[in-house]
Amino acid sequence: MRIPLDRQSEIPVYEQIEKTLRKNILSGNLAPETRLPGTRTLAEELGVSRITVKNAYAWLESDGLIATRAGSGTYVLAQEEIGAVPKLDKTIPWPLWQQQFYREEPPPVGPARPQRDRLQLIQFTGVGDPDQFPLRDFTKSLLAVLRRDGVAALEYGDFNGGHLPLRRTIAHILASQGIQARPENILVTSGSQQALSLICQVLLKAGDVILVEKPTYNFALELFRDLGYIVEGIPIDGNGMRVEDLELLLQQAHPKLIYTIPNFQNPSGVCMSSPRRRQLLALSDRYNIPILEDDFAGDLRYDGRTQPAIKGLDNGGRVIYTGTFSKMLMPGLRMGFLLADGPIFARLVEHKRVHDLATSSLLQRTLDEYVTVGRYQAHLRRSCRVYSKRREAMLAAIGRHLPKEVTVDPPQGGLFIWLRLPEGIPSPELLEAALEEGVEFAPGTRFFPDPAEGERYLRLNFATQPPENIEAGIRRLGKAMKYKGVSSDHW
Amino acid sequence: MRIPLDRQSEIPVYEQIEKTLRKNILSGNLAPETRLPGTRTLAEELGVSRITVKNAYAWLESDGLIATRAGSGTYVLAQEEIGAVPKLDKTIPWPLWQQQFYREEPPPVGPARPQRDRLQLIQFTGVGDPDQFPLRDFTKSLLAVLRRDGVAALEYGDFNGGHLPLRRTIAHILASQGIQARPENILVTSGSQQALSLICQVLLKAGDVILVEKPTYNFALELFRDLGYIVEGIPIDGNGMRVEDLELLLQQAHPKLIYTIPNFQNPSGVCMSSPRRRQLLALSDRYNIPILEDDFAGDLRYDGRTQPAIKGLDNGGRVIYTGTFSKMLMPGLRMGFLLADGPIFARLVEHKRVHDLATSSLLQRTLDEYVTVGRYQAHLRRSCRVYSKRREAMLAAIGRHLPKEVTVDPPQGGLFIWLRLPEGIPSPELLEAALEEGVEFAPGTRFFPDPAEGERYLRLNFATQPPENIEAGIRRLGKAMKYKGVSSDHW
Repeated sequence: MRIPLDRQSEIPVYEQIEKTLRKNILSGNLAPETRLPGTRTLAEELGVSRITVKNAYAWLESDGLIATRAGSGTYVLAQEEIGAVPKLDKTIPWPLWQQQFYREEPPPVGPARPQRDRLQLIQFTGVGDPDQFPLRDFTKSLLAVLRRDGVAALEYGDFNGGHLPLRRTIAHILASQGIQARPENILVTSGSQQALSLICQVLLKAGDVILVEKPTYNFALELFRDLGYIVEGIPIDGNGMRVEDLELLLQQAHPKLIYTIPNFQNPSGVCMSSPRRRQLLALSDRYNIPILEDDFAGDLRYDGRTQPAIKGLDNGGRVIYTGTFSKMLMPGLRMGFLLADGPIFARLVEHKRVHDLATSSLLQRTLDEYVTVGRYQAHLRRSCRVYSKRREAMLAAIGRHLPKEVTVDPPQGGLFIWLRLPEGIPSPELLEAALEEGVEFAPGTRFFPDPAEGERYLRLNFATQPPENIEAGIRRLGKAMKYKGVSSDHW
Repeated sequence: MRIPLDRQSEIPVYEQIEKTLRKNILSGNLAPETRLPGTRTLAEELGVSRITVKNAYAWLESDGLIATRAGSGTYVLAQEEIGAVPKLDKTIPWPLWQQQFYREEPPPVGPARPQRDRLQLIQFTGVGDPDQFPLRDFTKSLLAVLRRDGVAALEYGDFNGGHLPLRRTIAHILASQGIQARPENILVTSGSQQALSLICQVLLKAGDVILVEKPTYNFALELFRDLGYIVEGIPIDGNGMRVEDLELLLQQAHPKLIYTIPNFQNPSGVCMSSPRRRQLLALSDRYNIPILEDDFAGDLRYDGRTQPAIKGLDNGGRVIYTGTFSKMLMPGLRMGFLLADGPIFARLVEHKRVHDLATSSLLQRTLDEYVTVGRYQAHLRRSCRVYSKRREAMLAAIGRHLPKEVTVDPPQGGLFIWLRLPEGIPSPELLEAALEEGVEFAPGTRFFPDPAEGERYLRLNFATQPPENIEAGIRRLGKAMKYKGVSSDHW
């Protein structure tokens, strides 16, 4: 069979073979039931590898143009056969049970990524700076694991909470932060989002009440809504959750769980004070309600004094603690963990197992190979140095470019600056103008149980952009505010 | 500071430093509030790298023996401070809310792995042979991805269903199996177990009825029980689910979902006949009930004719299909997918996103780099060749070593042989004797909604062991049966 090949072309050889055959089949040049040459024969004829021919045939077969019949060869399919597999028939209505899903909004797709022609969009969103990720060392660790463990790195691994050496490492890191943890009480999860999901599903059912700070982490809010919980918010101030306001809610709403982010809260950036942490723990005890402590960035502190983790104050299994490597390393790793004492731990392990069996053994081993306590702390110090400068840069730029009516509490760590706008322009509306100017932020509406309460706020991530982009981005934000008339008496 | 170092020792240098300091702190030689030398200074003094000293300090700090105070240095902690972090107090009872989790059984830990001194345990469990995994090529793909995509491979990736190129590849593989699939209707999941979990949670709530084949996949059963569903079983015969028995159940039990494994069913190995597939689809239509088709090993066929996938017969969004790369490649990858048409797809994507955000972008990209349609088919052919021989070996060994009262239907593909025992010895009891002899199988009780119904069955995986182990393992199983008196008139 003659197939013209251009070995200098950018089109792969297998694709050239495939295209020629396809053209000939569709045009009828190769009639139905024509037997194609065997892959070995054609490969020899064309002077290419057999895999190349196989790939070409595979694509034609997957498109229903040819078929391989066991023991007999590969044949061109007739037109009728080409249409033999039923395609989705658009004239048939969906089954009735599908209708409950009908009018759902299209799912939010992470951060919006509008296409701009004129200038590169500066995004103050996301969770960390990819450029800080130690790609070389991580790759080395990955290779070391594959060399050392071979296929064992790709078997199921430990169903009982995760790869034990990694859990030991996590326990040591926690100990260095004042939390006594035994590896046997640590469960490795696919990101801390999965940890939240597991804990909630073990403790609550649809219709139960969960207490959260308002504002709080948007993906946690979405999770709680998805699970059908009633979400009640507790206001925060500069010292975190207003625990004083909590007792009444505990008496009235009978919540099943209190969800808190005590350090550099997402989105507000505030830390809960030590007295409030102790008070919260006392209330958890008195009202028999578990606390879910989400410590997503507790060790990214740039100044001020470290507060004890609530879990570190808990001596009786009242607090379930979650942490993550996503913020320090990379979100795409999807590696988090939870720490829980008491009988609930075994239930959490079981729940994880039935829902996805295990988290990738290869990634668990690689993370363990990469992360030593010393390296973790070194990486942390480097991140703190970089992010702390960016925080300064953003605060300075805010002072220079935003109207004075916009207020901000400088955070002592973490990733976020939380801006309060003067009355007038809701932040989702401001976002439209900002995107026009080439800068993106997260509007406050995403972070409140009642979105309307968030209209006067917006969240900026100062950690993802280098200082020069921070300056430019905040300048653009200033322009957007001016355009929207956030203030008139300034600049 | 003098620290004796033995550079020839097997004990790492950082550990030698750590041990010396620890001894001195615990003995009081290094008094509380002693300032330790800076890491740079000590490294120079000892002629070691600074990372070595940092590692030593990190371990001491993580054990609460020293503390680094920002801007001031590293200090030995006083005894009281050492005990300052509250440890779990065993005299305090768990909070009341923990009591609901109290008397839970310890979670099953995958296959039991008893320690045997005399001989190596031969396991006819698990899901595939690690030695078939293309480790070298997979590692190459991993490196190629990291080289090509850099840190992008470790960012969140596509929230909207998974890495699009991988979804395109999956669509092509499905097309080659007669299932028309658009990449936009494929959702990448953390193993097919997560796919099952997502589909169930979107379609059912606790207390709803789900129909399954009996027997059926044990981890699916555990999932359905965990979610609080009422599980009703439909018997199977040599042609799969007895669809004739289904209609009455549909009328009486009002199920919300039918779960089926039509190809080389786990655990029975049977395939559903074509007429029954069409009949099942018709009933799904008539009774407005979605079908969940779990095709975990549909392409591992060694002889007989391929049946169309039920999804391949569905032209109107009635079937949700799940598949996995675990069986073909490695379970530890945790990569599966689902295919769903109609409004439910967006809901499934959203549900996945709120529960774990995304499946590892790095692994998705690596899989896409590794798997081409041609390579997939080549790998499949190789696996079929190997596994088909093992099936023959096991069937022959069963003929030679097991009593004739034990009956078996030779499967045409897949991984499993399902044995039926004569009355008398429940398979969990037989398992004990078998483990004593050095062979492991999965007792039938794990696979039935009502475990008692499975006492006369056991499942053997013929794919995980080389032929010589299969011969030896079945001989041992024969001994265990003899010992347990499964039959007396044979051998």
